Order: sequence, then C-alpha cells, then structure tokens
Amino acid sequence: MSTVTAFDTVDVRFETSALLDGSDAMNPDPDYSAAYLRLSTDAADGHEGHAFVFTIGRGNDVQVAAIEAVAERVVGRDLEADLADLGGFWRELVHDSQLRWLGPEKGVMHMAIGAVVNAYWDLKAKRAGLPLWQLLGRMTPEELVALVDFRYLTDALTPEEALDILRAAEPGRAAREAELLASGYPGYTTTPGWLGYSDDKLRRLAREAVDDGFAQIKLKVGDRLEDDLRRLAIARDEVGPGIRIAVDANQRWDRDQAVEWIRALEPFDLAWVEEPTSPDDILAHAAIADAVAPVPIATGEHGMNRVLFKQLLQARAASIVQIDATRVAGVNENVAILLLAAKFGVRVCPHAGGVGLCEAVQHFSMFDFVAVSGSMEGRMIEYTTHLHEHMVAPAVVEGGRYRAPLSPGNGMEMRAESLRDHRVTSW
Amino acid sequence: MSTVTAFDTVDVRFETSALLDGSDAMNPDPDYSAAYLRLSTDAADGHEGHAFVFTIGRGNDVQVAAIEAVAERVVGRDLEADLADLGGFWRELVHDSQLRWLGPEKGVMHMAIGAVVNAYWDLKAKRAGLPLWQLLGRMTPEELVALVDFRYLTDALTPEEALDILRAAEPGRAAREAELLASGYPGYTTTPGWLGYSDDKLRRLAREAVDDGFAQIKLKVGDRLEDDLRRLAIARDEVGPGIRIAVDANQRWDRDQAVEWIRALEPFDLAWVEEPTSPDDILAHAAIADAVAPVPIATGEHGMNRVLFKQLLQARAASIVQIDATRVAGVNENVAILLLAAKFGVRVCPHAGGVGLCEAVQHFSMFDFVAVSGSMEGRMIEYTTHLHEHMVAPAVVEGGRYRAPLSPGNGMEMRAESLRDHRVTSW
Repeated sequence: MSTVTAFDTVDVRFETSALLDGSDAMNPDPDYSAAYLRLSTDAADGHEGHAFVFTIGRGNDVQVAAIEAVAERVVGRDLEADLADLGGFWRELVHDSQLRWLGPEKGVMHMAIGAVVNAYWDLKAKRAGLPLWQLLGRMTPEELVALVDFRYLTDALTPEEALDILRAAEPGRAAREAELLASGYPGYTTTPGWLGYSDDKLRRLAREAVDDGFAQIKLKVGDRLEDDLRRLAIARDEVGPGIRIAVDANQRWDRDQAVEWIRALEPFDLAWVEEPTSPDDILAHAAIADAVAPVPIATGEHGMNRVLFKQLLQARAASIVQIDATRVAGVNENVAILLLAAKFGVRVCPHAGGVGLCEAVQHFSMFDFVAVSGSMEGRMIEYTTHLHEHMVAPAVVEGGRYRAPLSPGNGMEMRAESLRDHRVTSW
Repeated sequence: MSTVTAFDTVDVRFETSALLDGSDAMNPDPDYSAAYLRLSTDAADGHEGHAFVFTIGRGNDVQVAAIEAVAERVVGRDLEADLADLGGFWRELVHDSQLRWLGPEKGVMHMAIGAVVNAYWDLKAKRAGLPLWQLLGRMTPEELVALVDFRYLTDALTPEEALDILRAAEPGRAAREAELLASGYPGYTTTPGWLGYSDDKLRRLAREAVDDGFAQIKLKVGDRLEDDLRRLAIARDEVGPGIRIAVDANQRWDRDQAVEWIRALEPFDLAWVEEPTSPDDILAHAAIADAVAPVPIATGEHGMNRVLFKQLLQARAASIVQIDATRVAGVNENVAILLLAAKFGVRVCPHAGGVGLCEAVQHFSMFDFVAVSGSMEGRMIEYTTHLHEHMVAPAVVEGGRYRAPLSPGNGMEMRAESLRDHRVTSW
C-alpha cells in the first residue's frame, strides 16, 4: 500500500492583461492564473499527481486555500484503494457533509475538489503509462459508469442508459483510437477575435488562422453592436464563405436583448453564439435558442455542475455543450456530462485557452470520440496560442487539428521553471 | 469623508455535531460556524460594520480567506459615497472582472461578497440608528430599486415593474410598521424535528412547540420512509390537526423518487415539502411541484443567486421561497429576490437556524411586510432555539412570533466573548 504523503500548492499568475489577450465583453483584463496542486506519494514509482484550477487573476489565492482544505483530507489515505475506485473517492469528497454547504457542488469549493480529483487521475494515468484519453478510452463500460454519480441525474440518464451508450460505442474503439493517433482531432481558434484587438490585428490574425488550416474562428462580441457588425464584416471578408465564424458574448446580454442582437448578427452566417446570457439561466437559454433557431446556441464553460448541464440538455437550451477541464469536479463529472450530451445527441466542443486548458481538455474530446459519442461530426476543441510554453507537454495543433497527446498523465503538469518564475508570493 | 480603515476576520465554530442538533438527511453532523467579518472606520461615530457567512464546519477557513480577499478591496474607499450608493457598490464587487470567474455569482466568493455588503449595511443602519428592516422599510421606492442589479432579471422583472410593486405598497407602510412593533411576525419551529432525535424527544419537543405558541413545526425526512411515516404519525398525534407540519428532505431525492416519497407522506397534511432535490434543479422542482400538487414545494436556502430564484418562479417550481441571509450577495440580492417573489405572488418564508441566521433574516421578512408584499398571509420565519446566546441582540420569539428587533444594525453582530471563546486557531 502507498499513500499520498504531502501536497504543494502554487499561486501562479501570468500578466496577460497587459497584452489584452483574452479580453472580452465581461473580462476586459484577465491575468491568466492557476491555483496549482502537486500530490506526492511514497510509492516506489516516484510519480506525482498534478492538477490546477484555472482563474483569471484576483482570488487565485482563495482558490489555492480551497484546494489546500481538500488536499489535507487525502493525505495518508490508501492510494491504491482510491485509484481503484475513483467513483467512490469522488462521492466521498463531493458529498462531504460539511464542505458541501459551501456550494453545494459549485464555485470555489467544487473546483477545488476537481483539482484533487484530477491530480488523482494524473497519478492513475502515469502509473498506467497512458495519456488520460487513452486510459479512459480503454476502461470497460462498467468501469466508466462506476465513475459517475447519478444522484440528480436519473430523470435524464440512468446507469443502465449510460451503460447502453458506452456498449454501443465499444465496437470500433481500437479503430478510432488509431484514427486519432494518425490524424488528430479538429480544433478552432479564438486567437483572432479578442475585443481588445484592432481591426488590422483582427484581419491579420483571421488570415493567419485560415492559413494555419483552421476551418473555424471565433470572435468576441457583445460590447457595442456597431463594433460587432464591423468586425464580423472584416472577418467574413477576410476568411471567405467557406470558413465558419462563431461569436462569443461572454454572458453579456439579458434574454430579450440577446435575441435582438443575435438576429442583427445572423446575416454573417454564425457557426454558433456562445454564452448569450447568465450561464445559470437555463430558461433564458432555451427561450433564446428557440427564438433564433436555426442559429446554434453554445454554453457550458461556466457550467457549474452536471445538474446544470442536465437541465440545459433537457430544455433544449444549447445545441453545443462546452465543457471545461477545471470548472466542475474533475474527470468524473466531465465523463458524466459527456454521457448526458451523448444521450441527448448534442455536440461537445470544449472550452480551452487561458493557461493549460487546451492541454487538459483535449483528453475529454478524444475519449468521447473513442468511447462515448464515437463521432467528430461538428465537434472541435477551442485553441488559442497563449502560454503553452509553460506546460510540460504543450498541446500540438497542426493544420487546424489537435495531435493526440502521448505523454502519460492528464496534461495539466506545468514546467517547474514556470511555476517558480510566475509564482506569486503576496497579493 | 471617512473610510474603512481595517478589517478583522474570525473563524468561529460551535461543536454542535456532538448534540445532533441540526442533523438531517444530508447533513448528519454539522458544526455550526461563521466566517466572521468586522469593518473598522475612521469616522468619529465609532461604529463598526459586522457580518458573517454561516457554514457548518469544515471549509469555514476557506470562507474566511474569501472574505479577506474581498474586504481588502474596500479598505481606503470613500465610505460616505459607498453608503450613499450601495447599489453601485454591489455591482462593483459582484461584477469585478477577475473575481467573478470564481463563481460567477455563486459559492464561496459570492457569499464572501455578501459578507462585505452586509457589513456595509450594518454600518449604514447603525449610522441611521435603525434596525435594518426599518432602514429599508423607510427608503423610497426609487432608492430601493436602485439597490437591485436587474442584469439577467429583465425577462421576469423590470425596474419599472419593481417600482410599481413598491409604490403599490407605499400606502400603509406606517401602519404595518406599527403592527410589527406591536405584535411581531409569525415564526415556525424546526427544533422538534431533527433526524438524530429519538421518538420520545420528538414527541416532547413537538408538544413544547405547541405550548410555546407555534402554529407550525417542521420535521426532517428523507432518510428512511418507514422512519418518516412513524415520526410524522407521532408528531401529528401529538400536535393534533390544527397545527401545520412541514417536512424538509434537504436535497435527498432524485425527481421521481421525490414524487413517490411525497405521495407516501401526503396523508399527514403537509404544510410544505422543502428541498426535495438538488437546489440547482429548477426543472425537477417544477416537475415535482406539478406532480404532487396541491402539496406546496419550498426551496431556496441553498439558492445561489437571483438568477436561480427568478427561474424557480418563472417555472412555478416553488410556491414558497426560502431566502437565506448569508447565501447570496447580501442585502441587495435579497431585496431583488423579495421583489421577484412579489411579482410572482409567491410567499417568502426565510430559512434560519444555525447560528445568527434568525437574527439576520428576520429583517427581510419584516421589510417585506412593510414595503414589498405588504402581507403576512401564509408567511413565517423559521426558528430554532440554538446558539442565540452568542448574538449581541438575540432574536426574541414569544407566543410563536418574532418580536420586531429594535437594535440598530443588521442583527449579525456576535458577542466579543463568543468570538473569543469559539475562535478557531488552526484546523
């Protein structure tokens, strides 16, 4: 038996606000940051479990404090027993009778649980010598179902239905894994479209995106309609009709305003409209989706937990689900959300960018292709060019496609030099 | 001009788990706790602003860290300007572009903002020499509307509609204030019904509740149906048909299980069924409410923000809204929720208990009676007997009614001895 013997946390921040990278209608000045966790064990293999919660600056120290509160609870536990039953481990942390009061299942404390859960998955994948997507993609349907907490889900998805979905995707797993290894998974890029960029920079970056092989770009909108119309015209002019353009309002509108604004942007042939209003507002998303159909509505990067995603799907409030690697309580909850999306036949196009999110979330899309939906149709992973140099195994995107990662682990490990150089000592 | 010059926080915990006070189907062993905040100013009046976030133990230190992160941002600000525009102050804190990533508007960070906002209200009320309910109840409709952030609310409630509701309640304000001062506001008691109590203790406490003048008691349910049926039979037998009995499942059930369970309990003539499932699950609450009608469904003590309450009301998912004094972002957000409830004609029966929650939340019901709904019909405030001795101005309940508090402030100030004696130094 081995145990987690210790943990370290790091408050690491990158001063991205100075460059206006990542600026949008709600987040004008993000400083991409990570509340970082490393678990050490006494096992002879020497593996460490790494994970983080992505934030955009202020409050990253609070996120670190929350991770410490959860990590303290796992020191000394039987690691083999936990790694063999990560479903039970997840339930124990999420349903801790005192900690759950601080959510329940949402916000800082839920994300902190996610970091600990993800660090365990990092250990499990490293021990198996596999990248997370392959580790998950080779688990049996029964093992995968056991990861999911079906509490509050059974009115939309039962364990039996989840098992059926996974069994239906069993034939062809090996062929799809080989396809991923050979040709990767589609990406799209948000790099051209930040609100803080000049028209010239937008035009240049849109051109570069097409030259780089991306079939879709995304523009931030929602601050001033006239700016959005001008920027969309520039982008459409530059990329031509064959490239998809999505827009992202980052929660800027109320329901009726969203409908009006989207109708004004519709002539530009939108691939989707992302986060039109509050991420918590299932009913408004449903009303907007209905009013602007067939323009697809996308949301989920701020989706707090599986209960929120379940309702978005039940209400037909989104036709694209955007999971995030660090918003919910780790791998297990994202497996649950992938199963829900498959049940409702809705595409999953993960949120990425920031720091480390591309590296982390690519595993879920690839696992989904191998073992859940079995499809890449209309699916793609967000990509931005920032800060990959800080990751031990940076995501590789070529010709507009994510190459399947081969390094063992969950993809979240940051370089020791980056942690040291961007560590914050006092805020 | 004066400023907030400093703040103190205290991690204060009471070992209630040893007594099984407060035990329910989801929270078997709560240690009632408070992440406590005190703001000091350089004004000559010497007033301090007090507030707290209620938690049930573990993680209280994380809640303290979050409060500190927010409080740091208000030190040195122009206090008079902020107190004169608490609506603008609220927006500035809640929509801080970096901090909101940690919610947005939910969980630890949102509650931390609530503590700071509530401490400002404490200062404002103390400066006015009025208890919070009277301070709010004497503000003009225009001033009250200015407190509310209507972002994400306008599909259900516009500022104009809010103004209409408040203007309609203006006549009779003085008479209703006098009525409160003369005869208080109805309470109900949860003291008899904790799951950890023996049948004998339940019977004895149910009898005492009736003898004390309460017209409603509440029992925890949801662990084992046979226990619930036996306990309800005991309680109904003891209190007779004239006393209302509500039950509280504390989020224990999935949708279909809730419907089945509630139908089994229905013969006991339930005043309401509280928290049948996940507090985030608007659609399940709506389905349950529809299936078990006319049994009323109540929820809200874990309602994370005004967007959640808006949807519960839009979906007719609850016929009783249970606001909590420290779950949302302070006074302003509870004013918004009271206005939403009034718009939809739904009763508000606040959650209380724990430590300090009775003292804090009574102000909202009384303000609602004076200036919003103008009605006590079917409305009441939860009451439990625990821990009032730690409050500077303990809630007074006599003959089953809350006496209107007279002490200036928001009611959240704890005794210095209690803060000292129950302060936690390391967990």
